[in-house]
Amino acid sequence: MLTGCETHIEIDKAECKKEIVSLQLQLASLQRQYREKGIPIVILIAGPSASGKGRVVGELLRELDPRNYSLHSVPSPPTDDIRYPFLRRYWCRLPANGTIGLFIDNWYRALFHRSKGFKSKADQANWCQRINTFEQQLTSSGMRIFKYYLHISRKEQKKRFRKLSGNKHTTWRIKAADKLMLKEFEQYHENADRVIEFTHKENATWTIVPADSGQYALLAILRTLVTELDKNSFQGTSPAAEKKLHIEVKTIEQSPRLENADLSLSLNLLEYENSLEELRSRLYKLHNQVYRRKIPVVIAYEGWDAAGKGGNIKRLAHSLDPRGCQVMPIGAPVGDEKTHHYLWRFWTRVPRTGHIAIFDRTWYGRVLVEKVEGLCSPEECERAYSEIMEMEREWTDSGIVLLKFWINIDQEEQLKRFQERKNTPHKQWKITDEDWRNREKWDKYAEAVNIMLQRTHSGWAPWTIVESNCKLHARIKVMKTVVAALETRLRK
Amino acid sequence: MLTGCETHIEIDKAECKKEIVSLQLQLASLQRQYREKGIPIVILIAGPSASGKGRVVGELLRELDPRNYSLHSVPSPPTDDIRYPFLRRYWCRLPANGTIGLFIDNWYRALFHRSKGFKSKADQANWCQRINTFEQQLTSSGMRIFKYYLHISRKEQKKRFRKLSGNKHTTWRIKAADKLMLKEFEQYHENADRVIEFTHKENATWTIVPADSGQYALLAILRTLVTELDKNSFQGTSPAAEKKLHIEVKTIEQSPRLENADLSLSLNLLEYENSLEELRSRLYKLHNQVYRRKIPVVIAYEGWDAAGKGGNIKRLAHSLDPRGCQVMPIGAPVGDEKTHHYLWRFWTRVPRTGHIAIFDRTWYGRVLVEKVEGLCSPEECERAYSEIMEMEREWTDSGIVLLKFWINIDQEEQLKRFQERKNTPHKQWKITDEDWRNREKWDKYAEAVNIMLQRTHSGWAPWTIVESNCKLHARIKVMKTVVAALETRLRK
Repeated sequence: MLTGCETHIEIDKAECKKEIVSLQLQLASLQRQYREKGIPIVILIAGPSASGKGRVVGELLRELDPRNYSLHSVPSPPTDDIRYPFLRRYWCRLPANGTIGLFIDNWYRALFHRSKGFKSKADQANWCQRINTFEQQLTSSGMRIFKYYLHISRKEQKKRFRKLSGNKHTTWRIKAADKLMLKEFEQYHENADRVIEFTHKENATWTIVPADSGQYALLAILRTLVTELDKNSFQGTSPAAEKKLHIEVKTIEQSPRLENADLSLSLNLLEYENSLEELRSRLYKLHNQVYRRKIPVVIAYEGWDAAGKGGNIKRLAHSLDPRGCQVMPIGAPVGDEKTHHYLWRFWTRVPRTGHIAIFDRTWYGRVLVEKVEGLCSPEECERAYSEIMEMEREWTDSGIVLLKFWINIDQEEQLKRFQERKNTPHKQWKITDEDWRNREKWDKYAEAVNIMLQRTHSGWAPWTIVESNCKLHARIKVMKTVVAALETRLRK
Repeated sequence: MLTGCETHIEIDKAECKKEIVSLQLQLASLQRQYREKGIPIVILIAGPSASGKGRVVGELLRELDPRNYSLHSVPSPPTDDIRYPFLRRYWCRLPANGTIGLFIDNWYRALFHRSKGFKSKADQANWCQRINTFEQQLTSSGMRIFKYYLHISRKEQKKRFRKLSGNKHTTWRIKAADKLMLKEFEQYHENADRVIEFTHKENATWTIVPADSGQYALLAILRTLVTELDKNSFQGTSPAAEKKLHIEVKTIEQSPRLENADLSLSLNLLEYENSLEELRSRLYKLHNQVYRRKIPVVIAYEGWDAAGKGGNIKRLAHSLDPRGCQVMPIGAPVGDEKTHHYLWRFWTRVPRTGHIAIFDRTWYGRVLVEKVEGLCSPEECERAYSEIMEMEREWTDSGIVLLKFWINIDQEEQLKRFQERKNTPHKQWKITDEDWRNREKWDKYAEAVNIMLQRTHSGWAPWTIVESNCKLHARIKVMKTVVAALETRLRK
């Protein structure tokens, strides 16, 4: 693609300038319309060194309301980012609904620099596929994504390098890597070509912009951007949502089902205390090793109201050093969480290497409470199964150990516990009218749980049903499962 | 203080255990009460290596609701933190209203480690003073702060080091610095003693806890914490608010006044364009140098509605590389901003070294709109003048160049511009009923502005009144002022 593209287009400077000014104003007006509709926009500006990315962005922003855009440019200097799954840094920086995120530093960065580590073309294709999945998740939820590649000739790049070097104020900008790029210009292009081909999708298209003239590049970007934004803002539908990309995810064969759980399993206090003591000490040691080997761990809890999640988490957490372990209680989204993708608040909470995150309720809320209560559409819910699997795959591929527990009780046991809470003064705050209402929908929830177990039980992120009519049994089972999983990983 | 304190207290283990369990439950109940009242709590746990900080914190958290606390423990490994003013990292991590923040890694960290760089006792005293000011700002706004120092004997520390070293799972925990501490135990204590004395204030007291027995330490902390929290939660007043600490800040002599501004100052288009071209190019070069010399810059804009702040900022920003410059529009607080100290959202937005932050409206909202509209009490407003000066001092002491502009027009000019906005279709969105309402309070605002100028015009963060009846003049004046300030700093 790139090889066939012009890098230089003749323009009439005065005409061009006039059109740019008018397009800048149109863009600002579109920004206000998207603001009102609450649709987020992502604009990626990519291209080789000295292709004019900074200048173009400066001009794109000229008339925009700074309250409603964010610019992500210089790749952050030494931060924590590298201690998290790769995509987290971008998830965290995604624009809120109704705002624009401009990314010079973006998720294509590593892909465009062939020197930066792909073992093979298959490896590169795999990365592109992950990025397609990421963009698909975003556009499915209504985000608009525009990707621009500033295409300059080797001659032009050389000229610009020379100009930058010649000026004492800018000479520091030319780094060794840039000089290398000039040398390997053809390879850079070939590689970029492949990446663009792999990742040019209907929902997130690439536009290759002839950029030997900075002014033409700006004009070309403004033209497509204004046209595209305008078209869709008046149609009122997001074309991205129409196209569905289903990543086939193989689940492991025997996915657990609620009705197969043996709720009679129990422990007496003596058995419990003996096991607890032993498991606590093993967990403590394992946490130490996990910390030193920098293995991140995610432990996800879901379960019926009053199933004993809280107490179970407490016992587990108290076997761990609080400095390397965090309990993350998940309720209805609040604040910024409401104006972002439903997975955003989990991406931002993923633990860094060597740390353990325990989620008290999770991203599965989407296919449980949100599904049953109609808080998301059937299509959204349907999509969520794959989206969740994709997220979990990204996490575990980055090295995270991921365990998911369904804390299970039956209806009689729940009733008993609700009544006990109601009648015990210091427990009354734990029981609300909502709990009673949810209880009436037991069967609907049970069905949703079974579908969830079936569709999201995977080799890399398995579900464990924890029989919790006897809380003592449940606590020991969770601890044993965690111990086994950590020991397996540490043997690797 | 420390030298006179016991490190070891005999206890009856069984009795102690019983009391601890009961106090843990009381603490959980107090947490719920504070949650309802929306009062934030900060608990600092300090002490030498192996004094049992992690263990105590684990037990303090045992019964707490994890939704409403956060733990800050391991000092973050390589992050951006060091590129910001020292206190920013703690401001960013302060608990929201109604929640508890536990800090093992806290603002006393450097102070307690004498090896970590104080030139002199005066230097140390100065740091302590800054921390007192910080804590005073927090408690004045209603936060409760409790500081605990775990006091162990050298003998006990040695014993614990030996135990940790002897276990293959924990031996990595003992680092060279810890061994050094054992050697310099007395000096560490002497230094800690001084710090505690300097920073033991009525609004944020230290409790020295004998910690040779971990269980006793826990008990002692729980006892004071529960007693203190309980006392005040029923009185319903925050004693911290009663005590006022006024840092005397010298303002420079001639603080500007609105009525002295010569609003007839103007430029014609030719003069404007000539100056603009020259200043743009100087600014661009200066930004380059500022970036390389890693000087952070804050440019704060306040001014009348329709005074031309937006256009002024735009011209300034377009002379700067967008990758090193961010415009921060400030409106009414939203989301997390509403549940934190009013200065929190400015501390979290401070630029990192080498970057320029332009604030479109600022922290002065507290003494302008909030004062005039009665959104803060007269006491809060009174306090704000010093608090703002203190914040600005922290920033500039850390190396930030701080400039403040009041964009000034007169009433007639404002009326003219309001009417123009009303009558120009693509500008109508800029004018709201609120603008007309604010206009009616012109005199009140003018008075507030003059008081603000008088009380917050300082050598390190001066105000410049920018005559803006002629927008062209205003833009050039701002750019000239910025150029002059950057050149002065770069000559240093």
